[in-house]
Amino acid sequence: MVIAITMGDAAGVGPEIALRSFLDGEIPDGAVVYGDLSVLQYCAETLGLSVPLRAVRDPREAAAGQLNVLDFARLNRGDFAIGKVSAASGAAARHYVVEATKAALARRVEAVVTLPMNKEATRLSDPQFIGHTELIASLCGVERFAMMLALDELATTFVSTHVSLAEAIRLVRRDRVIELALLMHETLSRFIAKPRLAVAGLNPHAGEAGIFGDEENREIAPAVREARDRGLDIEGPLPPDTVFLQALRRKRFDAIICMYHDQGHIPLKLYDFEGGVNVTLGLPIIRTSVDHGTAFDIAYQGKASTRSLVAALRYARKLMQTDRLTG
Amino acid sequence: MVIAITMGDAAGVGPEIALRSFLDGEIPDGAVVYGDLSVLQYCAETLGLSVPLRAVRDPREAAAGQLNVLDFARLNRGDFAIGKVSAASGAAARHYVVEATKAALARRVEAVVTLPMNKEATRLSDPQFIGHTELIASLCGVERFAMMLALDELATTFVSTHVSLAEAIRLVRRDRVIELALLMHETLSRFIAKPRLAVAGLNPHAGEAGIFGDEENREIAPAVREARDRGLDIEGPLPPDTVFLQALRRKRFDAIICMYHDQGHIPLKLYDFEGGVNVTLGLPIIRTSVDHGTAFDIAYQGKASTRSLVAALRYARKLMQTDRLTG
Repeated sequence: MVIAITMGDAAGVGPEIALRSFLDGEIPDGAVVYGDLSVLQYCAETLGLSVPLRAVRDPREAAAGQLNVLDFARLNRGDFAIGKVSAASGAAARHYVVEATKAALARRVEAVVTLPMNKEATRLSDPQFIGHTELIASLCGVERFAMMLALDELATTFVSTHVSLAEAIRLVRRDRVIELALLMHETLSRFIAKPRLAVAGLNPHAGEAGIFGDEENREIAPAVREARDRGLDIEGPLPPDTVFLQALRRKRFDAIICMYHDQGHIPLKLYDFEGGVNVTLGLPIIRTSVDHGTAFDIAYQGKASTRSLVAALRYARKLMQTDRLTG
Repeated sequence: MVIAITMGDAAGVGPEIALRSFLDGEIPDGAVVYGDLSVLQYCAETLGLSVPLRAVRDPREAAAGQLNVLDFARLNRGDFAIGKVSAASGAAARHYVVEATKAALARRVEAVVTLPMNKEATRLSDPQFIGHTELIASLCGVERFAMMLALDELATTFVSTHVSLAEAIRLVRRDRVIELALLMHETLSRFIAKPRLAVAGLNPHAGEAGIFGDEENREIAPAVREARDRGLDIEGPLPPDTVFLQALRRKRFDAIICMYHDQGHIPLKLYDFEGGVNVTLGLPIIRTSVDHGTAFDIAYQGKASTRSLVAALRYARKLMQTDRLTG
């Protein structure tokens, strides 16, 4: 069971999260950090952590009892500063992700778990860079993909994420909702026999039968009907202000398809701030990610929570096991 | 200390919530239900509750040890059916509210606490009816008012409520945000020395410095600056997906000004579904309300939670005590 963990931007919280998760016994034996050995050593020294770091030349050399590192040796000590944007650390972080994705596509690793890149830093060497997930999807040659934000008890996905709320409303389209329902069903079916999907409305009270807003009647309800016709267990559009309650407190749903970023991020972060995992839906490889950024303001201080990486590793293994069973 | 509790629509959960709250010892001695005695008797019989109901002719006759009822005798048994919309119960519910508001304006009662009306039922006799709060504001001759949704530990208010999300975005205006900040500050100052207000952004990550959406820079940030210039303790615009966490888990704020309905209703309902209270800001009288509807589907079954009424009564008393101290 080989998992590639990309180290993320050297100036952020990625290196220390990898080190501390290892010391907590949370890194599986077959995992390999795709990163820079010297950065991990420097981070361990800075924080006074004693971690048995070992360079491996191939992910399959990963051994138990040590933190295995596929060392790309992209960075020298003067190339970056803790908590600062730099072209060198941005380009290095991008390189680890490219290599890990290639390894997963070639089946040399079974899953990729990513620590955070910094968008600004990466754009200094790659002005076309849109985001971490878009990079991986493009390496996989995939156009139909989506992010899932998951806790153990609830998975969510989003019609849109980092766009203005006005633009998010325009993106609420029937085809997109159907696509998300199918992607979500496909992924969750790996470990839930018949996943129960809920679709949130866009407007307050899901528009109250068209009184405020017609997106429910025009786009969302027809999408739910079509997804149901295709055999999915799906309900909606449901009032956004109670659907999370229904799912998280009353366990009525396994997943919620959200109409915009904050509709799902507000309740999930409130419910469990650090336990969220990002999973990319629609890829030919398994990819999970922490649900936080580089957090430059607290980097190399030992304050960053390891919970999201631990959850991302656990979710990756859940998907891997069923991957083996089914194919 | 006289509080008028309006019974709400006879066909909904209002009557049983009043009865059961009394049996739980949660109705203050000086409270009077503005409603129909015969409906309360019928509800008590249906649920097998033994409640000492007593008609009073004036709220000041309210006595301890009984549930005092100002009986408007608007309804006969055949005028409405449990869980059904009817013109008679809608008009009766409206009447209780009109009378309680008049009593509060005339200082015959110190606060009005309202149980739910049914909009559809009320419109059968009053086609101009917009909502419970708008009715009360209009009786008070007030145009500048707002709803506050409060838990004990956090108060929220909203730039808009029951409008489409597209319309809600258009309503995010500097003047409105300032108005809400002032109304909120004024009300919370009754029992918090210097209330700490947060203003949520509209867009994901509060627009990330204008990258997605300009409402933060154009409307919200200038409003926060102006409110601060007027002496308020106020911060924002803050990322919507962490501000509730900051307030509820880390106790950094007493109140959040929300840009649209679901931004605040999603997290508050998830955090404490039944504990929310509505408070009308900007009125010359004290008015609190339960944060739920008539729930026709479970009416007269003894299932409706009394928690929101209990919280609404508690909040009203908190506001009343300080009312006495200051004026």
